Amino acid sequence: MILPDVRLQLALDLVGVFVFALSGGLVAVRKQLDLFGVLVLAAVTGLGGGILRDLLIGAVPPAGISDWRTFIAALLAGLVTFFWHPGIGRIARTVRVLDAAGLGAFCVTGALRAVAIGTTPQTAVIVGTLTAIGGGMVRDVLAGEVPEVLRRELYALPAALGATVVVVAHELGVLSIPVALGAAVLVATLRVIAVVLDLNAPRPLRNEPTESGPPPAAP
Amino acid sequence: MILPDVRLQLALDLVGVFVFALSGGLVAVRKQLDLFGVLVLAAVTGLGGGILRDLLIGAVPPAGISDWRTFIAALLAGLVTFFWHPGIGRIARTVRVLDAAGLGAFCVTGALRAVAIGTTPQTAVIVGTLTAIGGGMVRDVLAGEVPEVLRRELYALPAALGATVVVVAHELGVLSIPVALGAAVLVATLRVIAVVLDLNAPRPLRNEPTESGPPPAAP
Amino acid sequence: MILPDVRLQLALDLVGVFVFALSGGLVAVRKQLDLFGVLVLAAVTGLGGGILRDLLIGAVPPAGISDWRTFIAALLAGLVTFFWHPGIGRIARTVRVLDAAGLGAFCVTGALRAVAIGTTPQTAVIVGTLTAIGGGMVRDVLAGEVPEVLRRELYALPAALGATVVVVAHELGVLSIPVALGAAVLVATLRVIAVVLDLNAPRPLRNEPTESGPPPAAP
Repeated sequence: MILPDVRLQLALDLVGVFVFALSGGLVAVRKQLDLFGVLVLAAVTGLGGGILRDLLIGAVPPAGISDWRTFIAALLAGLVTFFWHPGIGRIARTVRVLDAAGLGAFCVTGALRAVAIGTTPQTAVIVGTLTAIGGGMVRDVLAGEVPEVLRRELYALPAALGATVVVVAHELGVLSIPVALGAAVLVATLRVIAVVLDLNAPRPLRNEPTESGPPPAAP
Repeated sequence: MILPDVRLQLALDLVGVFVFALSGGLVAVRKQLDLFGVLVLAAVTGLGGGILRDLLIGAVPPAGISDWRTFIAALLAGLVTFFWHPGIGRIARTVRVLDAAGLGAFCVTGALRAVAIGTTPQTAVIVGTLTAIGGGMVRDVLAGEVPEVLRRELYALPAALGATVVVVAHELGVLSIPVALGAAVLVATLRVIAVVLDLNAPRPLRNEPTESGPPPAAP
Repeated sequence: MILPDVRLQLALDLVGVFVFALSGGLVAVRKQLDLFGVLVLAAVTGLGGGILRDLLIGAVPPAGISDWRTFIAALLAGLVTFFWHPGIGRIARTVRVLDAAGLGAFCVTGALRAVAIGTTPQTAVIVGTLTAIGGGMVRDVLAGEVPEVLRRELYALPAALGATVVVVAHELGVLSIPVALGAAVLVATLRVIAVVLDLNAPRPLRNEPTESGPPPAAP
């Protein structure tokens, strides 16, 4: 079973890097970081998930630092957010939608790269999921916040689902461009629905009685 | 000199992953994260130290993502804490005791894996220590807290001691199951004693006069 | 084209590790961490950038944990800060000057190691920059602060410049000890000037009108 297409992987990588880097740049803008802070946070957010993926599967130096195309895409996204970010008030929602697109692109491309080097199916699913959630985790940690993936709403689950679709299709020998693209779109759609409907995964019950309403946001 | 036993390593790995994942899950519960946040923080905490170890010694993909047994153990621990966590008030102490068991298991198994691939003794001690303190550091950073290992009480020292016992025994050709198990129990016991007695390592002197009593906890 | 000198690399590594570890130790002192917290934060700060570099270029186990010389240098710096730190009030500025020296040493040694294993020029520049900014980022994240590299003043740019000088000199076949040393001194000087003059990179414009004066520091 060969991979669908190298160009598809590159395209998904570029989309994922660019939108994740936008989300990193917007967080940096919200935190009032300076130009280089914006560029660094954009680059780390856009490339972090793929670098983590390549470290985990032993593909060094990681494509995130050796491929000039994705690197330029990340810096470009940082410049775009620096000079052309929307009003501060609308940033939080924009970050989340961009994040959803990156999530879809990266869980698919991460799983594709893992199966390409012959990892086990389980490893490929986990690598795909980590590729998708890694960049955003690094972004939030560097910005001094508890990562979004841990806090609320369905986030890791759609990524794991998308990676699973790719890996199962690969195992069944039916992995194709439409399947890979469809998995990415499915993940992004699920994530956007979760954001729009404010769908939350269940929270742990507290033993003591609590006030009505959701608990305060994590600090 | 051969390693004591592959099954011992697996058993210690499973114990370490499970208890560290419990501690990660409990921190997630305390932070009121949702189900997937609990599972992700449990998995990252339980598997993070071993993944760091494998990255450092070049064993990729790391066992933490390729071995389904430890992965299932981590998810199981996350589910256990989600559905069956004790009262919120008692969590802080419980986390620390579980942490002690993980510390003991991981400094031994980390050092065992390093000597197994023929690193120098110094490298094996450091890898063992980092295996033990890595998962908890990642847990605390993701939870938005300064890592426990940096804050108070003897933490890194027992782990370094346990790894040193394993490496010295290996160098002397007397590494055996009782020695490895004894080192793990020794570390866990030292750590629990430090927690119970509130034993602290010395703090830096301040130049200006201060109020009596310990300084306020780091923010 | 051969590398200038193994001893130069070692000397720069030792300087970089020692001063970064001092900066890590001082941050730990300011946070009132205990002795082992100081040692761990010093070691992680001093060795973190180099470990990241070696992971990225596949040189495992990383020199940071296998070379006893740099490891001892890091621990020594931790002890120095613990027992002999200046008044708390002067620490912030001291940390920044030490940081500048580490920045200069590490961007050069990181780039040197990358070109030595034959990476592409772009990869060598990025690896050099990440080597320089990595230790400080880990220090600040572990201390619960948004990394200095993201917050204010020219930081990543001088490091990228220094790495570029080394890589271009290597490509042109004129890499020599004076060039490498000069690049390190240039970077440290630029960074100190930025600190002293409080030179800041531009910040993103806000859409809404703001009070006069710079925005409040990031939290």
